[in-house]
Amino acid sequence: MFSRIDHIGVAVAELDQALALYRDTYQLNVAHREIVHEQGVEAVLLDIGEGHVELLAPLGADTPVGKFLAKKGPGLHHVAYQVTDIEGTLATLAATGVELIDTAPRTGIRNSRVAFLHPRSSGGVLTEIVQPAGEAH
Amino acid sequence: MFSRIDHIGVAVAELDQALALYRDTYQLNVAHREIVHEQGVEAVLLDIGEGHVELLAPLGADTPVGKFLAKKGPGLHHVAYQVTDIEGTLATLAATGVELIDTAPRTGIRNSRVAFLHPRSSGGVLTEIVQPAGEAH
Repeated sequence: MFSRIDHIGVAVAELDQALALYRDTYQLNVAHREIVHEQGVEAVLLDIGEGHVELLAPLGADTPVGKFLAKKGPGLHHVAYQVTDIEGTLATLAATGVELIDTAPRTGIRNSRVAFLHPRSSGGVLTEIVQPAGEAH
Repeated sequence: MFSRIDHIGVAVAELDQALALYRDTYQLNVAHREIVHEQGVEAVLLDIGEGHVELLAPLGADTPVGKFLAKKGPGLHHVAYQVTDIEGTLATLAATGVELIDTAPRTGIRNSRVAFLHPRSSGGVLTEIVQPAGEAH
């Protein structure tokens, strides 16, 4: 069902400070930077192995990541698992009783197709599934 | 410096309930189960891609994961990055001003050698570095 950890999402207050840590200190390569209006974030992807670290800076206080930061401070925000058939995976998960935030995929970073599971039914972990652009669907 | 996401650590109240989600619903293969007294947890590793999900159930309320659960509830606990030279990596990180919880490696699950960075200097993310058993050091 899940082929790999696609990325971990990290909530940060400010991207430049986070890049000083992840790019300069940890020496990870920056693969992509994008403002994802639909999710209210500016995001940076850094390569690591077969996956990425995704840094997420909120576009405003009244966004999901802005609210997360206000409540919990910077830190681990979500994990994303890669799938090859996002509609099929969502149907399978729903059939086993997993509560979905997104019952249909929406567009994520780099034109991926993404959906979030509700932490209520994923053990308190905000869990994303992602089908990269160009994968069969 | 970091070759891959070795695992994400997930704090859970109870392993059987978590396995119902990760093993049965998400269909991940259980690779290993171990009581790690030094860390006060019973841990389960599930295979995913080149890495793992590590479920962590506390051995008691007065353990780091027990305290985490009491304060924050179940959810994402840490991320672990794989390295091939843990002493060298710790020295490099310390030289760039990263605050270490463990200045020397200790024994982790499956006889890996592990060390934690302090969330204060890792952007609020409890960050582990891990050198698997059998890797050169």
